[in-house]
Formats: sequence, C-alpha cells, structure tokens
Amino acid sequence: MADIVTAAMIVIGDEILSGRTKDQNIGHLADVMTAIGVDLKEVRVVSDEEDAIVDAVNALRARHTYVFTTGGIGPTHDDITAESISKAFGVPCEYDERAYGMLEAHYAARGLEFTEARKRMARLPRGADHIDNPVSVAPGFRIGNVHVMAGVPSIFQAMLDNVVPSLKVGQKLLSATVHCPFGEGVIGGPLAEIQKSYPDTIIGSYPKYLDGSFWTELVVRARSQETLEQATASVQAMVDGLATRQL
Amino acid sequence: MADIVTAAMIVIGDEILSGRTKDQNIGHLADVMTAIGVDLKEVRVVSDEEDAIVDAVNALRARHTYVFTTGGIGPTHDDITAESISKAFGVPCEYDERAYGMLEAHYAARGLEFTEARKRMARLPRGADHIDNPVSVAPGFRIGNVHVMAGVPSIFQAMLDNVVPSLKVGQKLLSATVHCPFGEGVIGGPLAEIQKSYPDTIIGSYPKYLDGSFWTELVVRARSQETLEQATASVQAMVDGLATRQL
Repeated sequence: MADIVTAAMIVIGDEILSGRTKDQNIGHLADVMTAIGVDLKEVRVVSDEEDAIVDAVNALRARHTYVFTTGGIGPTHDDITAESISKAFGVPCEYDERAYGMLEAHYAARGLEFTEARKRMARLPRGADHIDNPVSVAPGFRIGNVHVMAGVPSIFQAMLDNVVPSLKVGQKLLSATVHCPFGEGVIGGPLAEIQKSYPDTIIGSYPKYLDGSFWTELVVRARSQETLEQATASVQAMVDGLATRQL
Repeated sequence: MADIVTAAMIVIGDEILSGRTKDQNIGHLADVMTAIGVDLKEVRVVSDEEDAIVDAVNALRARHTYVFTTGGIGPTHDDITAESISKAFGVPCEYDERAYGMLEAHYAARGLEFTEARKRMARLPRGADHIDNPVSVAPGFRIGNVHVMAGVPSIFQAMLDNVVPSLKVGQKLLSATVHCPFGEGVIGGPLAEIQKSYPDTIIGSYPKYLDGSFWTELVVRARSQETLEQATASVQAMVDGLATRQL
C-alpha cells in the first residue's frame, strides 16, 4: 500500500482577509490534490506580515509532505513572501541569477524598464528551484517541501500544473456519492452505524438546504475499491429503506 | 482612539479540503468584519478531526478578540464541533435543556420523529449561550470568545447577523481605492516610498491580469480620515504622473 501523502496550503494576503478579493485558489488546489490522491489536511489564510507567514510555514512544513503557498510574490512592497520563506528556512533571500536574466530579457524584449520593483521578483531564497510561470515569466519557487506560487488564479493554476508532475502522489482516495432526499436528522443515526461497520472508510454527510427543505449528499471515501463498493451499497440500502418507509 | 479588535475564523469540514464544497463563508465573514471595523487576521480550514479542531480553537482564541467557526454542528456522526469545542474549553458537552426543548417542539409540530441524531444538535458545551438559528432551529452557540455557527451559507449568514450586534466593534478601518492602469512592476518602487511616508496606513496593491496585460487596484487603508485622504492623494498623484509620462 502506498504511503499517505498529506499537504497544507497557506494563502497569503490581506486582500482575502479584508474581503476585497474572494479566494478562488483553495477550491482549485483541493480539487487537484483530491484528483491525484494527496490529502489536503489544512489551509491557513494569513496576512501580509512576516511573522504570520514564517510561523505558518514552519508549523506546516514540519507536519505535511507538501506545503503550497499562494500570493505575495509580485514586485510591490507588500509582496514579502520570498523574504518570509527565506527567513523560515534560515537562508538569505538574494537575486537568483537565472530569474534575473529571464526577467531582464522579458522586459527588454518589450521595451519596458527593468525597474527596482520588477527586479524584486528575481529575489529568491538561496537554493530554491524555479516553478515556471508561463503567463508572466516571474517564477514561483520550491524550497524543501514548500511550493511558492502566485495569487492571481490563472497564474497559480498554470504554476500548479507545472508542479504536479514532480509530486509523489498517494494512493488515490476513491469516492462515491449517494443522493439522499432526507435531512441529516433522519439519517444521522443509521449513517453513524454504517461508519462504525466500515472503519476504513470516511463517510461524509453534506447538508443542503433549498427552498425550505433539507437534503443531503452522502459521500463515501476509501482507498480500496472493494471497501468503497461495500460501504456505498450499505448507504444506498439505508436511503432506499427510508424512502420505502416514507411511501 | 478605540481598541483594535481582531478576529480569526475556523472553517471545519473535510468537504472543503476535498474540494467537494467550495467555501463561501470566508468571503462573507471577511466582508462583515471589515464593515464593522474588526480586523480578520487569520483563517484556518481544518478537517473533521477532534485534535485539529481543538488545536486551532485554543491557538486562536488566546490570540484574538473573537473566533468564529463554521461547520460541523449538524446531527451526523461527522459533526463533532460541539464536542471538540467543549474539549478545548475543558467543560462537559451535554444536553442543553432549552435547545432540547426547542428542537423537540420543532419536530413535534411537524410530525417528525425526534431521533437520536436530531437530539445531538441539543448537545452544547456547558455554559454556552445560544446563537439563534432562524432557518432550522438548531442553535449555534457562544462560549468565551468563540462563536460556533453552521456551515450551510444561508444559515451561517443568518446566525452571524444575530451575533454582530453583540460584538465590541473596533475603530473602523477606512479605505480608498485608486485604479491604476499600470502593472506592479511599474509602480512597485514609488508605491513603497509612499508607504514609508505614511506609516499609519496600510497600502495594498492587488494585481489584476486580463487579456494579456496587468493593471492594479491600489487600496489605502487608515483609521483616520485625514491620513487616508493624504495618502490616497499621494497615490493618485503617482498614478497621474506615470500616466503623463506615458503620453
């Protein structure tokens, strides 16, 4: 059986905490991790403050196989991710020769000045590897098990596509969904019994509320196809039994 | 000058971490906190595991004026928020007489069985106050500085509306936005200078990328109207100066 691979995410940015920008990256990373069999276990949204970033990076990189960050790698004064990550790892943050050259050439080709602000985007923790940015050149980077990416969703998604092939993936968590026309109050008891009978599964109940009535989506997750099918059949039988009783 | 009031949020639920459900509550809480002058400083998304919930609650309630949680207060076996919060506070989780009575009456009036699962929703940490749930009766609760609410967005929003009038609000952070047709690489240097000149402001730069070009939204935040206006005028003058140079 393959190892369990876990991940954590750090969303860096005052704009998310103020509500000005609505995050779109948590859901995307969650979808991608689930698809490749990595368990996303925790997400933190932190402000643009060095201590907050350093604390979150050091807490989470020790605990998980991978950490992914978004935000704060642009050229402005509030973009302090590279320096904060350097501090977390205890290495200098310095101009990366290759990143500097790429950015210099990029702006020269467009007749744009390579400003001090733009040069900031070439500053990386010493020893970091690039994560290619096909959209706007300025690279993300990987140091240790921490992957540092842009906050703009289209750039984040492009960078993540470049990271995924390098990840050690876990044994994919399989899932099956049972639609349940009843609210959680009806099914809570029997569902707990089924969960007890199948300790190797994770059975989730997701309440939905629409136009004055509750229904639920029941999701069974397991790493073995056989277990998944058995537990799902039990859940389906419970729902069918309740439906019959209601006729 | 009023106190600075800070808040943290804990989103509880495997369904967010798996990507199955896309969170809508972080953005809503952020908007409401900003509107009432409370600084939302950190958000954590944690799994439906007792240790994860207890650790997050205890870390954040010590650090912030308020903590808000969403999710995990329904009737199913994976709803372990009330028990986890009780554990974090070191108090028993037990049937709350008033909540039990309300739920019992609610189901009786609808000719529905008051199942063991439904009774679970009357279990609260000893000493907790109710947060009314106008949608589906089962209350949220407040214990100490921690406010525990539902994950279903319409119910969360209704509960939060009931909580807001009880909060000690901070001095509202005022903000002004300057539209900037240039990318961060152009403005990063001069913007950092303006930030240095106005240490009592928070100047954020939010890069936008559309159809192959970058622009930015520059947001100045301050607690004093006068400081806000001065700093915003400086930012606007910088943008106007750059626009003139480009003509």
